[in-house]
Amino acid sequence: MTDFFKGIPQITYEGPQTDNEFAFRHYNPDEVVMGKTLKDHLRFAVAYWHSFAWEGGDPFGGRTFERPWFGSEMDLAKLKADVAFEMFSILQAPYFCFHDADVRPEGATFAESSSNLSEIVDYFGEKMEQTGTKLLWGTANLFTNSRFMSGAATNPDPEVFAYSAATIKTCMDATHKLGGENYVLWGGREGYETLLNTDLKRERENMARMLRMVVDYKHKVGFKGAILVEPKPQEPSKHQYDYDVNTVFAFLKEYGLENEVKMNIEQGHAILAGHSFEHELAMAREFGILGSIDMNRNDYQSGWDTDQFPNNVPEVALAYYEVLKAGGFTTGGTNFDAKVRRQSIDPEDLILGHAGAMDVCARGLKAAAKMLEDGKLEELRNERYAGWDTDFGKDMQSSDLDAIHDKVLADNINPKAKSGRQERLENLVNQYC
Amino acid sequence: MTDFFKGIPQITYEGPQTDNEFAFRHYNPDEVVMGKTLKDHLRFAVAYWHSFAWEGGDPFGGRTFERPWFGSEMDLAKLKADVAFEMFSILQAPYFCFHDADVRPEGATFAESSSNLSEIVDYFGEKMEQTGTKLLWGTANLFTNSRFMSGAATNPDPEVFAYSAATIKTCMDATHKLGGENYVLWGGREGYETLLNTDLKRERENMARMLRMVVDYKHKVGFKGAILVEPKPQEPSKHQYDYDVNTVFAFLKEYGLENEVKMNIEQGHAILAGHSFEHELAMAREFGILGSIDMNRNDYQSGWDTDQFPNNVPEVALAYYEVLKAGGFTTGGTNFDAKVRRQSIDPEDLILGHAGAMDVCARGLKAAAKMLEDGKLEELRNERYAGWDTDFGKDMQSSDLDAIHDKVLADNINPKAKSGRQERLENLVNQYC
Amino acid sequence: MTDFFKGIPQITYEGPQTDNEFAFRHYNPDEVVMGKTLKDHLRFAVAYWHSFAWEGGDPFGGRTFERPWFGSEMDLAKLKADVAFEMFSILQAPYFCFHDADVRPEGATFAESSSNLSEIVDYFGEKMEQTGTKLLWGTANLFTNSRFMSGAATNPDPEVFAYSAATIKTCMDATHKLGGENYVLWGGREGYETLLNTDLKRERENMARMLRMVVDYKHKVGFKGAILVEPKPQEPSKHQYDYDVNTVFAFLKEYGLENEVKMNIEQGHAILAGHSFEHELAMAREFGILGSIDMNRNDYQSGWDTDQFPNNVPEVALAYYEVLKAGGFTTGGTNFDAKVRRQSIDPEDLILGHAGAMDVCARGLKAAAKMLEDGKLEELRNERYAGWDTDFGKDMQSSDLDAIHDKVLADNINPKAKSGRQERLENLVNQYC
Amino acid sequence: MTDFFKGIPQITYEGPQTDNEFAFRHYNPDEVVMGKTLKDHLRFAVAYWHSFAWEGGDPFGGRTFERPWFGSEMDLAKLKADVAFEMFSILQAPYFCFHDADVRPEGATFAESSSNLSEIVDYFGEKMEQTGTKLLWGTANLFTNSRFMSGAATNPDPEVFAYSAATIKTCMDATHKLGGENYVLWGGREGYETLLNTDLKRERENMARMLRMVVDYKHKVGFKGAILVEPKPQEPSKHQYDYDVNTVFAFLKEYGLENEVKMNIEQGHAILAGHSFEHELAMAREFGILGSIDMNRNDYQSGWDTDQFPNNVPEVALAYYEVLKAGGFTTGGTNFDAKVRRQSIDPEDLILGHAGAMDVCARGLKAAAKMLEDGKLEELRNERYAGWDTDFGKDMQSSDLDAIHDKVLADNINPKAKSGRQERLENLVNQYC
Repeated sequence: MTDFFKGIPQITYEGPQTDNEFAFRHYNPDEVVMGKTLKDHLRFAVAYWHSFAWEGGDPFGGRTFERPWFGSEMDLAKLKADVAFEMFSILQAPYFCFHDADVRPEGATFAESSSNLSEIVDYFGEKMEQTGTKLLWGTANLFTNSRFMSGAATNPDPEVFAYSAATIKTCMDATHKLGGENYVLWGGREGYETLLNTDLKRERENMARMLRMVVDYKHKVGFKGAILVEPKPQEPSKHQYDYDVNTVFAFLKEYGLENEVKMNIEQGHAILAGHSFEHELAMAREFGILGSIDMNRNDYQSGWDTDQFPNNVPEVALAYYEVLKAGGFTTGGTNFDAKVRRQSIDPEDLILGHAGAMDVCARGLKAAAKMLEDGKLEELRNERYAGWDTDFGKDMQSSDLDAIHDKVLADNINPKAKSGRQERLENLVNQYC
Repeated sequence: MTDFFKGIPQITYEGPQTDNEFAFRHYNPDEVVMGKTLKDHLRFAVAYWHSFAWEGGDPFGGRTFERPWFGSEMDLAKLKADVAFEMFSILQAPYFCFHDADVRPEGATFAESSSNLSEIVDYFGEKMEQTGTKLLWGTANLFTNSRFMSGAATNPDPEVFAYSAATIKTCMDATHKLGGENYVLWGGREGYETLLNTDLKRERENMARMLRMVVDYKHKVGFKGAILVEPKPQEPSKHQYDYDVNTVFAFLKEYGLENEVKMNIEQGHAILAGHSFEHELAMAREFGILGSIDMNRNDYQSGWDTDQFPNNVPEVALAYYEVLKAGGFTTGGTNFDAKVRRQSIDPEDLILGHAGAMDVCARGLKAAAKMLEDGKLEELRNERYAGWDTDFGKDMQSSDLDAIHDKVLADNINPKAKSGRQERLENLVNQYC
Repeated sequence: MTDFFKGIPQITYEGPQTDNEFAFRHYNPDEVVMGKTLKDHLRFAVAYWHSFAWEGGDPFGGRTFERPWFGSEMDLAKLKADVAFEMFSILQAPYFCFHDADVRPEGATFAESSSNLSEIVDYFGEKMEQTGTKLLWGTANLFTNSRFMSGAATNPDPEVFAYSAATIKTCMDATHKLGGENYVLWGGREGYETLLNTDLKRERENMARMLRMVVDYKHKVGFKGAILVEPKPQEPSKHQYDYDVNTVFAFLKEYGLENEVKMNIEQGHAILAGHSFEHELAMAREFGILGSIDMNRNDYQSGWDTDQFPNNVPEVALAYYEVLKAGGFTTGGTNFDAKVRRQSIDPEDLILGHAGAMDVCARGLKAAAKMLEDGKLEELRNERYAGWDTDFGKDMQSSDLDAIHDKVLADNINPKAKSGRQERLENLVNQYC
Repeated sequence: MTDFFKGIPQITYEGPQTDNEFAFRHYNPDEVVMGKTLKDHLRFAVAYWHSFAWEGGDPFGGRTFERPWFGSEMDLAKLKADVAFEMFSILQAPYFCFHDADVRPEGATFAESSSNLSEIVDYFGEKMEQTGTKLLWGTANLFTNSRFMSGAATNPDPEVFAYSAATIKTCMDATHKLGGENYVLWGGREGYETLLNTDLKRERENMARMLRMVVDYKHKVGFKGAILVEPKPQEPSKHQYDYDVNTVFAFLKEYGLENEVKMNIEQGHAILAGHSFEHELAMAREFGILGSIDMNRNDYQSGWDTDQFPNNVPEVALAYYEVLKAGGFTTGGTNFDAKVRRQSIDPEDLILGHAGAMDVCARGLKAAAKMLEDGKLEELRNERYAGWDTDFGKDMQSSDLDAIHDKVLADNINPKAKSGRQERLENLVNQYC
């Protein structure tokens, strides 16, 4: 045991009335809702990067966190892993997620970076076995190092494409070896700063080729998890190609990959693209590509990715409502792609940030489940579309413009508006939160 | 001749040095650029709705314009047409565009509305022949009347779907009869106010069915123009289905309509969706669905559709650069979906708003053409991607993850960043504006 | 009794468990919190304009509501009043608010408009006596009529200034006569569409003169209520002068009015100005000018004033926390400057929209009161600033740059960062919601 | 001479037709406009931080620039200075600006940091004498180091207040010694991440005290330059106290500092606060506190500070129009608070970024000067307000509500709307650009 979290107890469920800050008030992992435990519904994962690799910098300031594992030696990477797995246990978090760059020092060469990664993967393997923590997904960091400044798969330089492909292979191998349930691609540099220097056609084709190679490799090595793309509209780029769920779906259809790839959808990225989180989830469900979620919250009034822990129960409830309507998670889960504020420098902040978020998610999911089980919302929704089940409604689905035109004329159809009852439905939702 | 524009002369080209407010300084219709006259490049169209139907209202105030044709009688509709065609002539505008609701009084029944439309279409036909003005596109207004408050094709009530279909048929007939070169669909109400009362699946399927019927009808009646969808992210809806070019392309692919339907792209809508205008144009070009443009400008700092006349030459130049790179307009053109401010209540404001915009577009197009002809920008862009034409680059396009990985390892590939030269390119563009 | 709300029962408190949609679950007017009833804390008011004057239009569509009182005759204005007061009773709303233009038909002349207003004021007087409903505030509509299109107090035309001043006088008289507790000024047209045609200096001076005259008149006639200015950044104008609380305070200080005028702060306007609602409330409290609130919610992702009913309890709790910290309302209250969506066309939507909002506010206020009474939040905040109460801290407040510099040098002061504990505080707040 | 800019010639004026990328096309320093040379009008300054201290990082990636002076030794700081002054000469930039942290290594103690600064100040002094480059302003970096994470003047910890005060003293001394013409304060951390842990009252009072001490110290040491505050709404903080010009003016008035402090206004910060640049400039002019400008451009569609070089002439022209109307700069100037994109890694990018921006500013200023000299715009503006110079207009400025009301009634005043002629004015502006 390290002494990083010394004095911080394991977080367990104590119920809403407890005075203990270091307890769950709402997240009882074993509570059964709609036939499944909360643990199995929510499938919480901790994001390695925010809690263990991020140093607290922002565009106007540097490191604020002092962590004993900061540095670039393998020993420190192992100390970091020790602390990370301790935190997973304290939080009872069943899963974690990582990028290669979060967990191993960058080497002087590709070979050295790969070898560092391998060593850490072995170390993780032991810890996972000891603690029972599992890997929700792995991914490659193709955005931090300056070699990726102009893109990874979409870089004007084919050497960077090559370097990216090779890196992805090592990360897929690592994920596969650790029994990861998904592999994620986020294209933070796959976009442009200015159209003036950008060959859209070539860049998008290269991006498609890379994705196709990933899918092929998955099948080749027998990886059973899902391949997930994570949409984001911009930042760091001026404009990223994977803008939102619809944009990614267009891309998948264009290149025939819609049956091979699903989405990892983040609240903050949805917001930045001008959508509500539930919109993006609902669209992915419609397209049949809802894979997993990155749960955080973006400040609606800050135009960059704030990656805060979720804390608004009514909003979180609407998100889980869409997840439950889609049948719940299969390979996916709830990854906290969230970081404590850079002023929250104490070890206990890391624990409280996660524990509070887990409670918020549990409250949200339970409210969503109740809404779905009660069925009033769905009933009111269905009532609104009942006309489509009448003969007239069915007719409308099998006519052409001429025929419909003649019918409107003949019957002097003049439809009367009906209330959308939005406020009533909003009141109803509030009864569950 | 009406006396609405009394005292206002025809606008003709007088060159940059003229002191005459009522003259073109840059738009010489007969000037040849890249082998085509400006008139044929720009294909200017006046939007009937903003200049003749809109009364100057905003969410906090009512009518400010006093026009002798306001009212709901056929005689007034004809007076409106008289003035409109006078304006087209004053401006030397070769095209116009209209919705049914702009040009004819709403009748008490569908039949009466249709018959009113027919009468005006005949009236238009005569005027078009007399003046030589042509129709760039027609469209149906399926958003103003309260029957459409919950959608047209996507309305929960099949009667509204029917009414919409019948209306579209009459508008397509009108467009066809008047020799319109395109037919446009803008789904201002095809979206939702709240997901809580919305059946996304059904609504999107109905929207697809409507679009399919439109395409079928086009072929049935032998309409040779293009069917264009106009994306917009929101307003009036909380969220519209045709969010942006990528979203519409996803939809077309999903329903197999990508070879039948093109885009009418508006600057203001691009901005509201978080994209630059040139981004949307470039994406449509990549997808092969760039049809026509609605040229206006949105105030970047007002979160609604301000529909102002374009007045920033450097921005307009970048837009026409994308149009020219796509080969220029075929059936499409430059429709001014722009309105004078509600305080600009004088007839001369209408003329000056358009004339200034035509000059701005002419300057923009000429700058774009020069940039393209000089070729420096394209040369610098191509230089950046030259690596893809080497053997290594070609290799990268036909390998798999394994092979690339092995090559990176074997050759110790370690790519070095190269400058993106953005400022140099921006300076270059400024030399043409 | 009219039959508009026929079949809708009075809304009474039934507690959280009731199945009755037409009941309060959380708003028990007589419940005592921090020594005051909820009724006296919240001081709910219904906004006449949204529920009775607005017709359901938006920038792309017209009237959707069919109300028997729509029209421009005095009889209809009285029918409207009958229904309005019935709604106040159904909702147990103790207050209402109105503009002149909401309640009386516009006359052909100023004299006729004034006389219409007088007649309605008398009618209101009787109804208020009968029902016990009181007037929270009155105000003048100086934005809807086209005469105000270029401003009221800030109009380039002094005749409009005169017309505005005369109108304000009649509205202040009406408010005074009806025992109104505040008089509000919202300058929807006091701003500009373009700086190019605007004389900022003159317009702002005229705005100050108007406000000074209002203050003088208040004292002259012995009106005891507060004069309140309502900030908003833009819409309908491109830019309004009363941008936000700080901007209005700058204006009041510039013209020496800071002791005479307070603020009416709206959630939606705060959001549009880039602030949280609680920020604006806190700033007004700091300046000593917190008067009253317009409670609604703005869609964070729609760039215009959506004026929806509040429905997010955690957010509302933070707003009332600031109100309670300021000592609660004195003359002010909670005005629902909110409207049912234009698709919510049924009478019951009006009732449910308000009733749900009242419940949300009651939950928010109760959570805020508990937070304040428990004191943990304030305790943690105070702890953070404890250093300022030490000798060193006090020294810092009475030194100069030189002295401090020498001390830092001499003592080699090198401060260590301390955690801001944001997540812990956010968790704490969630325990109360 | 260092060899950093080897091969890059001095930039001189060659006129619009030159093919030379490394030349001014529009900025002829000696060209006389409105009685002053362009050099004296524009007073260009280079910002030390962006070009010499920034390493090319963004929130998702690290250093991209490889500069021989990166590191923390005094020798490297001097090499940096050598290159910087070479760049000032290549660009013919008459001024520069700096923070302490840009120019000297951070020491282990305050004393060591101060001594490092002194040594560099002496080094600068020699270089300034050799090259003739002058200091537009100096400032203290109170935001990068982790000690400032919770604020500088507004930190909860009085030790940080002390450290900040001491640092400011050394920076004011440095500025004074180098003949700086202004001293600037930007409060990047003076604001909050969450209101929950913030004592607004105390923080704002401490901020006022610090500013008062700065003013006192200026007088004490006989510094003749202006003290300038630079507003910004947010980033890095969730909300900064110096939100915009109006907010800062409110603050100055509240604490009686409005005659001692002026504004340094940045385009990008104006945009982030929801204002146009020209709005902020015009407001500062009205308040009599327009000091200097930070000229850059913010991407309207990126919600963070993009600090790009200005490249839109029509926008820049409107900004200089306000500056010229205010009488032009006195102590202030045009500081390029702009950075080359992080992909622009070559030395020549630094030169071309600045040179292009200088040309854009020269074009903008010349257009603005011509507009002002021609006087058409001002004439049309004045015409609009002519009514205020009539007897009626004058009357309106010395009446009260009663008297005006009686006059409106007696004379049946019913004002008629007049066109605001926005499009005409926009066309006029375009003739000058």
